[in-house]
Amino acid sequence: MTPNAGSADVAERLIALDWGTSALRAYLLGEGGEVLESRAEAWGIMQLPAGGFAAAFRDITGDWRTRYPDARALAAGMVGSTQGWVEARYCPSPAGVEELARSLAHVPGEALSIVPGIAQLGESPNVMRGEETQIIGAMVAHPGIAQDALLVLPGTHSKWVRVRDGRVHEFTTYLTGELFAVLSAHSILGRLARESAVVAGEEVAARAFARGVLAAGSSKSGMAPLLFSARALVLTGRLEAEASLEYLSGLLIGDELRCGLGEGGPPRALIGDPLLCARYVSALTLLGVGAVPVIEQSAPAGLWSIARRAGLIGPTTSRVVA
Amino acid sequence: MTPNAGSADVAERLIALDWGTSALRAYLLGEGGEVLESRAEAWGIMQLPAGGFAAAFRDITGDWRTRYPDARALAAGMVGSTQGWVEARYCPSPAGVEELARSLAHVPGEALSIVPGIAQLGESPNVMRGEETQIIGAMVAHPGIAQDALLVLPGTHSKWVRVRDGRVHEFTTYLTGELFAVLSAHSILGRLARESAVVAGEEVAARAFARGVLAAGSSKSGMAPLLFSARALVLTGRLEAEASLEYLSGLLIGDELRCGLGEGGPPRALIGDPLLCARYVSALTLLGVGAVPVIEQSAPAGLWSIARRAGLIGPTTSRVVA
Repeated sequence: MTPNAGSADVAERLIALDWGTSALRAYLLGEGGEVLESRAEAWGIMQLPAGGFAAAFRDITGDWRTRYPDARALAAGMVGSTQGWVEARYCPSPAGVEELARSLAHVPGEALSIVPGIAQLGESPNVMRGEETQIIGAMVAHPGIAQDALLVLPGTHSKWVRVRDGRVHEFTTYLTGELFAVLSAHSILGRLARESAVVAGEEVAARAFARGVLAAGSSKSGMAPLLFSARALVLTGRLEAEASLEYLSGLLIGDELRCGLGEGGPPRALIGDPLLCARYVSALTLLGVGAVPVIEQSAPAGLWSIARRAGLIGPTTSRVVA
Repeated sequence: MTPNAGSADVAERLIALDWGTSALRAYLLGEGGEVLESRAEAWGIMQLPAGGFAAAFRDITGDWRTRYPDARALAAGMVGSTQGWVEARYCPSPAGVEELARSLAHVPGEALSIVPGIAQLGESPNVMRGEETQIIGAMVAHPGIAQDALLVLPGTHSKWVRVRDGRVHEFTTYLTGELFAVLSAHSILGRLARESAVVAGEEVAARAFARGVLAAGSSKSGMAPLLFSARALVLTGRLEAEASLEYLSGLLIGDELRCGLGEGGPPRALIGDPLLCARYVSALTLLGVGAVPVIEQSAPAGLWSIARRAGLIGPTTSRVVA
């Protein structure tokens, strides 16, 4: 699709932003929600360019807004947190597209709204921001999972989410990705790999990962007594130093799966980054859970769906072309 | 005891060094192993002064060696690791004072020997360095525990150690202290506390710690699904931001105790820093395990015991006064 450069276009467009801690992804969505163009910058809310949120928003969407001056923008993710641009207060669970669309925050002076996260209150409080939008998008693409499904969104903060009747009910957060990052960079567990001059071959890496998954996945107690083995196995000559972080990744993912499978059973789908989801699929297979489908890139469809329900686009809006 | 300053003394002395990753502690021990003088510097093996190991050793022990030119020195801890001064290869378990004394490493050009660590080989490899010496010292002070006891040494890398007939048999390492340090400093779990302008009062802190201990200690799955609650409880108004690291400390110690009690039962004694041991005692009490004694400062007695067995001091050495 070639945009009508230089003059305003009357076609309906939505500018959809997936704006998290470490990255800003922007999508120009067409009348049916299809992704026409996409861009990504490393402008997470913790690493904004000079000029802050407004400059990042202007730079990544500038020409889209020139071409479609009437287009509204909708963002999801940490941009709506207390450290974000404008706080979008959590919706209490259970919440679905209806509740989210009713609770958008609006950025003063910009045609930009922000999707709130969802908070689980009560005895085991928990919060999500961004994942709710990916889940809404996944339900658009796969309506079957809206009924009653356990969904897993691997990531820095992995979420295990119970969906019923199109709404997010209970959920649990695992710090798996962040644990891996901080232990690799800042703990003694990462030191042997950091100091290794060798890069692990694919087969050595896969074997180390699988070993970690099986150790934690079959453990009675969990990862606590196992973490140090990422170092001890190397020091006693039983694991290649350069593969020790793959082993650690296996331990952490294996422990997440041990807990999650024990509490909620096998997931109906994985949602998220394809490479990371592939690690989870292979770990699930090692633990005897096969054929869990992966849903990628569902944030744009989620933003589209919430925007329609909120009347930012579609039949309920009336537009005047500038 | 007043040293005979300015001239050499014929009394038998041992210079005992507890030299770990973050600190160097030096003790001048008398003829019966009693601590005559002690010093500490922040000269862990990762933060040596200019001049490195030799300068640190000279500076902390200089006048002792002038007064007692015949005195030998014995060190334990990470100073004997591959990142240390001279590597003292691990003794395989089971090992006690006999095996350790036979396997000392010697620093070329110095009257200094280094105690090796102990490695558990086989299916669940594990290593310790420094703790073996504390355990030997604890058995000197409390001969009863040499027979058959589970000992816990809380720390950066907590050890749960099974001792039989005076020797270290199986042991497990928990990364509890290091996890707390890296998560506090580098993860999102520490952010709310780091940003809080308020310091938690003693009662608020104790309550948060206890809550963490009970949550992890009674959990079926372990700490993985609970870690994020150190943030979510604050965001949902159920925990004071300034107490969230106390809660995290409780979670991590509670999880260690859950695993350790489940695998080996209650410990016979805690060995180590009194303040840290007091946290473990209060956590054990919360989980229904009372009256576990604490053995402090046992490294000097351990070094003394190993030095005697190795003939560095005592009846088996013959000395010529300079």
